[in-house]
Amino acid sequence: MTREQLIRQIRNKGSFLCVGLDPDPRKLPSHTSRDTEAIVPFCQAIIETTMPYCVAYKLNIAFFESLGHRGWDILYRVRELLPAGCLLIADAKRADIGNTSRMYAKAFFEELRFDAITVAPYMGEDSIAPFLDYEGKWTIVLALTSNQGARDFQMRRLDNGKPLYVHVLETVSKWGNAHRLMFVAGGTQAEYLKQVRETVPDHFLLVPGIGAQGGDLNTVTDQCMTDDVGLLINSSREILYASSGKDFAEAAAEKAIAHQAAMSALLDRTIRH
Amino acid sequence: MTREQLIRQIRNKGSFLCVGLDPDPRKLPSHTSRDTEAIVPFCQAIIETTMPYCVAYKLNIAFFESLGHRGWDILYRVRELLPAGCLLIADAKRADIGNTSRMYAKAFFEELRFDAITVAPYMGEDSIAPFLDYEGKWTIVLALTSNQGARDFQMRRLDNGKPLYVHVLETVSKWGNAHRLMFVAGGTQAEYLKQVRETVPDHFLLVPGIGAQGGDLNTVTDQCMTDDVGLLINSSREILYASSGKDFAEAAAEKAIAHQAAMSALLDRTIRH
Repeated sequence: MTREQLIRQIRNKGSFLCVGLDPDPRKLPSHTSRDTEAIVPFCQAIIETTMPYCVAYKLNIAFFESLGHRGWDILYRVRELLPAGCLLIADAKRADIGNTSRMYAKAFFEELRFDAITVAPYMGEDSIAPFLDYEGKWTIVLALTSNQGARDFQMRRLDNGKPLYVHVLETVSKWGNAHRLMFVAGGTQAEYLKQVRETVPDHFLLVPGIGAQGGDLNTVTDQCMTDDVGLLINSSREILYASSGKDFAEAAAEKAIAHQAAMSALLDRTIRH
Repeated sequence: MTREQLIRQIRNKGSFLCVGLDPDPRKLPSHTSRDTEAIVPFCQAIIETTMPYCVAYKLNIAFFESLGHRGWDILYRVRELLPAGCLLIADAKRADIGNTSRMYAKAFFEELRFDAITVAPYMGEDSIAPFLDYEGKWTIVLALTSNQGARDFQMRRLDNGKPLYVHVLETVSKWGNAHRLMFVAGGTQAEYLKQVRETVPDHFLLVPGIGAQGGDLNTVTDQCMTDDVGLLINSSREILYASSGKDFAEAAAEKAIAHQAAMSALLDRTIRH
């Protein structure tokens, strides 16, 4: 999916919502069998009811790997349920030496046909380049994450006075343009988001941390929205587990609709058409 | 596997060799079918012939994920071929926010029953803690990697004058003791290995980069061996693809034997018994 297609989707749907699929058997609706196999129809129902209100789906690969022997098979089946019109993100936080990153890129871009993958920057350029080599695919690099641990290394100041996450943004943004590269910027890091946007004025940001983790949609939009929107806001648990009853899919849709309505208003207010 | 058990294995076998399994169908011996299914007997033969000469196996998870739909199944089957007496490492470079890292820990420590996993430090303490929670398991944190990209961030100096990788070693070594925590230090980074060892005098180091990547065994040992050995040296491609003929397993064993002989001599010279 190209940048232009993504922006068009956002404007058509009045939404920059990404629905995160972190399926945990223990949290499935109480009327289901709560086993590995129940994840497929659960995800199918969530996808079908939220599809009109979001422009992206983010699959948290850890949750599939933790299912054991059949986890990867379940991942492939859920992947097949995802709609082509949305940006499909593998939240995998991969990256390794070049020949190994090439294998991860093959796995997620070719075999699983995702549009995008999240990657960690610690190993540097040759660990990220194999992902950026794919035309029409997106590499989403961790810059400033939403968790407490972001303070341990990402916020440490370098000898030039800049925090590491700013150096990561400055350095990585030279490796790929805003048509193949996005960054993760945590929605819980409100006081730093302005600096993120100033450092990478054109790149899309994937923003987790809204909802269960405590981030605020309006704050993030104020700090980071651009004329091209430039934002994908992820919500996972809040939508997936909105209800543990038989109405789980309707409850998920209601949460997605509420986000879409708020986003639509923010788009009307902010974007020049 | 405990630290004591690992040290005992090293002394018994006269080896601190880790054999890396990065199975690539295109590189399998020419007489095989070179398809996904051929990976299982290939790995089985390599494991059987190298087992007497190594103390650890490291499975490069990317190579299994890149196999497509059946990759995870192949991974489970190869895992079952690995001997209990060796340290079994999932080279996965994972780490994410706490609830997601818990899922990765479950996948690799409980479902796949690995003894150890490699993790990336960028997301900080709460991304690594879920792995360290497992008693009798090892968390192997990237500090200074063997690739060119290590210069991009790992070697950048902080405002206290120290390179980031030293700060990572200092910080992470407070989160877990030398019985649950190891670090990755690239064998190609000879000039920096002394500083790695000075910063973490007790922790085991997993050292990739010997062989195909150009690192030297004697240099690494000189800089990093401790009274408790404190080293696992990985070799992957050099052993796996020592021959593309029918003698591939014997050729792999020969490479492993050569490493073991060199290591045995180094152990005799260095270790106080």
